[in-house]
Amino acid sequence: MLAEFDLIQRYFMPSQEASVSDGVALGCGDDATLLVPQEGQRLAVSVDTSVVDVHFPREAPAFAVGHRALAVALSDLAAMGAKSRWCLMALTFDQRSFADDDATQAWLADYARGFHALSEQHATTLVGGDVTSGALSIGVTVMGEVPVGEALTRGGAQAGDLIAVTGVLGGGAGGLALWKQGERDLRHPLLKRYLLPEPRLSAGIALRGLATAALDISDGLLADLAHLRAASHVGAVIDIDALPLADGLENALGLKAARQSALCGGDDYELLVTLSSDNIAKAQQRLAPLGLTLTVIGRCQEVLGISATDQADISGYAGWQHFSGEAP
Amino acid sequence: MLAEFDLIQRYFMPSQEASVSDGVALGCGDDATLLVPQEGQRLAVSVDTSVVDVHFPREAPAFAVGHRALAVALSDLAAMGAKSRWCLMALTFDQRSFADDDATQAWLADYARGFHALSEQHATTLVGGDVTSGALSIGVTVMGEVPVGEALTRGGAQAGDLIAVTGVLGGGAGGLALWKQGERDLRHPLLKRYLLPEPRLSAGIALRGLATAALDISDGLLADLAHLRAASHVGAVIDIDALPLADGLENALGLKAARQSALCGGDDYELLVTLSSDNIAKAQQRLAPLGLTLTVIGRCQEVLGISATDQADISGYAGWQHFSGEAP
Repeated sequence: MLAEFDLIQRYFMPSQEASVSDGVALGCGDDATLLVPQEGQRLAVSVDTSVVDVHFPREAPAFAVGHRALAVALSDLAAMGAKSRWCLMALTFDQRSFADDDATQAWLADYARGFHALSEQHATTLVGGDVTSGALSIGVTVMGEVPVGEALTRGGAQAGDLIAVTGVLGGGAGGLALWKQGERDLRHPLLKRYLLPEPRLSAGIALRGLATAALDISDGLLADLAHLRAASHVGAVIDIDALPLADGLENALGLKAARQSALCGGDDYELLVTLSSDNIAKAQQRLAPLGLTLTVIGRCQEVLGISATDQADISGYAGWQHFSGEAP
Repeated sequence: MLAEFDLIQRYFMPSQEASVSDGVALGCGDDATLLVPQEGQRLAVSVDTSVVDVHFPREAPAFAVGHRALAVALSDLAAMGAKSRWCLMALTFDQRSFADDDATQAWLADYARGFHALSEQHATTLVGGDVTSGALSIGVTVMGEVPVGEALTRGGAQAGDLIAVTGVLGGGAGGLALWKQGERDLRHPLLKRYLLPEPRLSAGIALRGLATAALDISDGLLADLAHLRAASHVGAVIDIDALPLADGLENALGLKAARQSALCGGDDYELLVTLSSDNIAKAQQRLAPLGLTLTVIGRCQEVLGISATDQADISGYAGWQHFSGEAP
């Protein structure tokens, strides 16, 4: 058995001392880390837990487990228009589930590699952690900053605003379906969408001042749109034909299931935003250099509730509920 | 099955909207919470995971589980001399382990009551959370503030400094021993020490400017002292006779096991501090109004390593290692 303290040292302590330029006055290794928040900024904080067999498959590559646990947490900062700065990582895992210490260390090294690669990509310093014994689970707390008054919330949408999404939809659910069919190649575009989602942090920042409301699509478009509708006190009409489907999704699942995945699948981690029609072109121009599309998929309206342009009945769709234990 | 979103709403959303006076610009319910850090302060952050059967017994009262999960995290802020301000709580639990929804809700209500009672006691606003399905585990991220330059770290002890502890030792291990023998009355002083530890936040703040180093005793006095010695590059000599034993501990376990519990038991969540002999009386005066003793138990020395005044060999003692799975 490897000791907790050694594991933290070996895999999760930064190789170089974090510095004041990272906003870290005292790094890992004491009872708490001391951070230096910037003046004129709100501190945006969120926590997400990823549990084996609930949020990711037990056999998922360790690299993807580490990447994904951080990605889903960062996605919440993206949805606020915040710049990500720091994170804390609480890893619970069971050493007895590995053949030996070498296998444990190989898994941890790969896990840490996935976590650190994404944290570096988004300049997010790991400033605290905990490693405990138990069923595999990762809790990630993310902390970011957004200038006072510029945060994107769920509550600002108005009747008449367009509803738009970054990137493509349905890939999370499509990837899960392929995984269940035995696909294991992480280079497969759908599997990549499912296991290696990219938090849209740059897009969130670019949409400051343009989006009237925003959240990330983790539970499924309709479920998350319901949160936005409730917070903004608006209704919405969705254009099913306009849904930007993930590459290969229709081929893999057929059109009907592809649309269902896009509407209810969850795990897409794209941003769902509302904005006035005057601002849509400007928003698209800002996202283009990031390699991201922004697709209009509907419109907010005064009449509460949700409907579809083509009169299809979408009232029966529901979002992913982790507690129901039902995959989309 | 109860839905995750409903559970969060019912048990963990503050009954009253958190306000700017709590340093909360946007409370729970959006993708992230927006906080307002104070100028001139460092932000102290830490995360702790409490896992069933590792950190607390499966049959522990839900109230104690909630209290304890927050207490052990707050203890890290206490050790920094930080004032606690905010926390995030990630609860993972298995609804299938309850007889029915009523039993689930009774457990959750009691758990939340324990958590909230302690958070209110320490003016710590719950600003984020996550409820997921899986083996029972609670991850708590705590955030506090400490004036620039006033944080207590592990690294400031010097040869000649006295070593002192707040309160009493060994109660955590003693309580665990009693629990294993079937004791279930939470009013029992030792059981209370084990299941309802009190984070020493006021003591940490009172010791600013006096303690040269500090940390909290979670892994056991000797193990935690080893962290302090390493960070401060000092040795230490401990006076075994001076250890302040928890009330009833010697009666329950006998002197030898009582001392072993005090040295290695862990889960005491008292503060271990170093300070110059000039400051000990002043420090004791500051803690007296808090109802807390500060007992000198040894001295730092230049010769590295650890020894005891009575020449007893304490080199064989080791601290609690969660990963070894061995209780003290």
